[in-house]
Amino acid sequence: MRLRNKPWAREYMAEHPDILIAEPEKIGAGWSTVFNNENPIQVEVGTGMGQFIIGMALANPSINYIGIEHFDNVIVSALEKAVEAGKPSNLRLFRVNGKELTELFAPNELDRIYLNFSDPWPKTRHAKRRLTHETFLRLYEEVLKPHGEIHFKTDNRSLFEYSLISMTDYGMKLGLVSLDLHAEMPEDNIMTEYEEKFSAKGQPIYRLEAQFKTK
Amino acid sequence: MRLRNKPWAREYMAEHPDILIAEPEKIGAGWSTVFNNENPIQVEVGTGMGQFIIGMALANPSINYIGIEHFDNVIVSALEKAVEAGKPSNLRLFRVNGKELTELFAPNELDRIYLNFSDPWPKTRHAKRRLTHETFLRLYEEVLKPHGEIHFKTDNRSLFEYSLISMTDYGMKLGLVSLDLHAEMPEDNIMTEYEEKFSAKGQPIYRLEAQFKTK
Repeated sequence: MRLRNKPWAREYMAEHPDILIAEPEKIGAGWSTVFNNENPIQVEVGTGMGQFIIGMALANPSINYIGIEHFDNVIVSALEKAVEAGKPSNLRLFRVNGKELTELFAPNELDRIYLNFSDPWPKTRHAKRRLTHETFLRLYEEVLKPHGEIHFKTDNRSLFEYSLISMTDYGMKLGLVSLDLHAEMPEDNIMTEYEEKFSAKGQPIYRLEAQFKTK
Repeated sequence: MRLRNKPWAREYMAEHPDILIAEPEKIGAGWSTVFNNENPIQVEVGTGMGQFIIGMALANPSINYIGIEHFDNVIVSALEKAVEAGKPSNLRLFRVNGKELTELFAPNELDRIYLNFSDPWPKTRHAKRRLTHETFLRLYEEVLKPHGEIHFKTDNRSLFEYSLISMTDYGMKLGLVSLDLHAEMPEDNIMTEYEEKFSAKGQPIYRLEAQFKTK
C-alpha cells in the first residue's frame, strides 16, 4: 500500500482515545473489562483501512472486535470509518505491531484471529515476516482459546500456498478451504478494500479457516 | 469421459500380456521380480489414456511405473500408446480398480502414488468414492514405504479443496502446494490428456505433494 504522509493523523487519533488505543499494552485490565461484557473477542491482525473489522462489528453486535494495525497513516483511515460508523461500542483499534500480541492479550483471551490480505513478503529471506510464519502461529496459539481459529483470506497465491503448508506443518487442522471465494460467495462475507479491488479484476480470492489443536 | 464401446479392446489387450496385465492379483511374486530389478515402483491410480504414465516411464528409465485403470475402453488407449512407444520395459498397465491396491501390492512395496485428474464425485453422498477419501488414503499408506508420497493434480477446485482437508486431517504432511501449476511450469511436468485440454482453456491446474508420516 502506498502510504501518504498524513501530518494530522496523530492529532486526529488523540481525539478518539475511546476507540483508537495508541498504547494498549499499558492497559492493565483484561479486555472484557474494557468492553464491559463477557462476549467473545476476535482480532484482525493487520486491519488496514478497517472496512472488514468495522463491517464485522456492525454485523455482529454480540462479538467484540479489535483491529490491530502498525502504521499511523493506515489506521487513521480505519479510525475515520469507525467514527463515521458511529463508533460501535464493540470495536477497538490498536496502533501496534502484530508481534506484540502476547503482550496485549492474556493466554486464552481471544476467540478468533483474522488475517486478511496480509503482506506476502515474497522473498524467502523475509519468510519470517509473513503473518502465517511459525513464529506468528506460536503467538496466535498462545492468546487464543483451545481450538481457537484463524480465518485467513488473500489474493496472493504464493502466500496462500505457503500458509497451507506452514499451518498444517504446525499441526493446525483445516476446517475450510476455498480457492475461489467469490465463485460461491458466502452471504456473510465482509469484503476488505483489497478484496473489492482484486476480485473486481477477476482474480481468485483464497480463504481458509484453521484451528489449533488442544494445547 | 465418454466411453466409446470398443469391441476389439479385449482381444487387443490379450495380444499384449507382457505390458497389459489383466489379472495382476494372480501374479504371486513381488513386482521387483516382474521388472527384474530393484528400482523404485511408482503407481498412477486412474491412469486414463496413459499419456502421463508413459511419459514418465520414457523420461525416467530407472524408475518402474504401473498405471492402474478400471475401464477396458480407457486402458486400451493407454495400451495403444504404450505399444507405439515401444513398450518401455519399466512400464506395466493393470486393468483393475483402485480399491484393490492392497491385494496387488505388499506393504511398503511402493515408492510413490500419482493421482491425476481423478473423478471429482461432486455429490457429498459419493465422497467415499473420491480417490483422496480417507478410505483410499488408508490403502495408499499400507502399500507405500514409510514417508511415501502422493502426488496429486487436478483442475477441479472442489476436489482439491476437499483433498487438502482430507489429507491433512489424515495426518499427511504437505510438501508442496501449487494453486496454478502452469503459471510457473516445472520443467519436468508431464501433462495428462485432461491437463492439456483444461490448461489450454486458461483454467488453473492445482497440484500438491503430500507425505505420510512414519507408520
